[in-house]
Amino acid sequence: MLATLPKAIVFDTFGTVVDWRTSLIEDLGAYGASRGIRADWTALVDAWRAAYQPSMNRVRKGEIPWTRLDDLHRASLDRLVAEQNIQGLTEDDLRHINLGWHRLRPWPDSVPGLTRIKQHFIIGPLSNGNVALLANMAKHSLLPWDMIFGSDLFGHFKPDPETYLGVARLLDLAPGEVMMAAAHNSDLAAARAQGLMTAFFPRPDEYGPLQDKDFAADKDWDVIARDIEDLADRLGA
Amino acid sequence: MLATLPKAIVFDTFGTVVDWRTSLIEDLGAYGASRGIRADWTALVDAWRAAYQPSMNRVRKGEIPWTRLDDLHRASLDRLVAEQNIQGLTEDDLRHINLGWHRLRPWPDSVPGLTRIKQHFIIGPLSNGNVALLANMAKHSLLPWDMIFGSDLFGHFKPDPETYLGVARLLDLAPGEVMMAAAHNSDLAAARAQGLMTAFFPRPDEYGPLQDKDFAADKDWDVIARDIEDLADRLGA
Repeated sequence: MLATLPKAIVFDTFGTVVDWRTSLIEDLGAYGASRGIRADWTALVDAWRAAYQPSMNRVRKGEIPWTRLDDLHRASLDRLVAEQNIQGLTEDDLRHINLGWHRLRPWPDSVPGLTRIKQHFIIGPLSNGNVALLANMAKHSLLPWDMIFGSDLFGHFKPDPETYLGVARLLDLAPGEVMMAAAHNSDLAAARAQGLMTAFFPRPDEYGPLQDKDFAADKDWDVIARDIEDLADRLGA
Repeated sequence: MLATLPKAIVFDTFGTVVDWRTSLIEDLGAYGASRGIRADWTALVDAWRAAYQPSMNRVRKGEIPWTRLDDLHRASLDRLVAEQNIQGLTEDDLRHINLGWHRLRPWPDSVPGLTRIKQHFIIGPLSNGNVALLANMAKHSLLPWDMIFGSDLFGHFKPDPETYLGVARLLDLAPGEVMMAAAHNSDLAAARAQGLMTAFFPRPDEYGPLQDKDFAADKDWDVIARDIEDLADRLGA
């Protein structure tokens, strides 16, 4: 048990709370079948996610102005559809596919674990997703957030300090009263550098066969758990 | 029934969802008794609320920079404690009293009505309160918000257009897809001017014996209900 408990816990979302890869492959595959569109949806999803960090880096480096993740996702999708020569998608199809990120499903422990933790702590996503994406996802998957910390509230993507410190500012807490929970060691390192508490649990299937890191904690994070239900146990929730 | 339903419904909070006057009079009275502090707590609460609009007007007019409601409340409290000659309050007491706004209790229909509406619509407070105040209030009174639209997200107080339009922007909705619900006609007039849908229900006891308006709808708001449970009925929720 921790000597001091946080007052709020914010969760990375893609991979940490929701299984983006399986959700998108199934969602796009079913939609493509219903529309008679042929594509390697797994390849599209993996390439789409591979475009995620590079697309945000263009914002972080100032090459393009602040852009919501929904719009970065759409630009990457348009490019990949052309590169992978996927034929027959209308504008409505592309809009529907892009909103697949709003329909991601939680890991099995996410909703029960968050529901327990919410009884004792303020909880929210701290995600590179924008508020609309995260609000729609919460509605779709019944994620019981108290507040949604979308990157558009800060005009910055993680790991920029403005995101972690922005949560503390909005909740009128010291950084050390906020815990960042993530399945990604790099996210926790950035949060700790700003003074936040940290909790890790692995999601070894996040990237499917492409996963090459984050199988275990690589630092002495404040809590190291198996999943969100185990995190609830360790927080006494 | 409305011809078209909104996608999100935001609620004014002080007076509309929570009974600030009775809550504060009881909260401060009990605290004062426990600390042996003598004061006319009802007079303090009424004067404190009377200072609310003038204090925000100083921000709206640019006389002072953006200031969170918690800090406006504290400045007003300090002035009123001196004016009303309330003796013996320590800094800790003043901090506790100021956080009384974080401990406001809902009207009896608020939680059951919001819980039903949440099943069908994205819901949140759109309040002049700051995020921390509203998040703590939600935790204290179990208000089941999906997202908290505190005025500090916008750097503006209602009725500035940035607040109503800011909700639509963050949710990636058209203004007409967002409904403002309030027990105050003036709030709804400002929301309608920005294209939002509107819902009114009265809170005739909000100001106790001092109430002098908002006993009924004074315009043809999109929905006119008795309270939040009746609003849920009228929305088919």
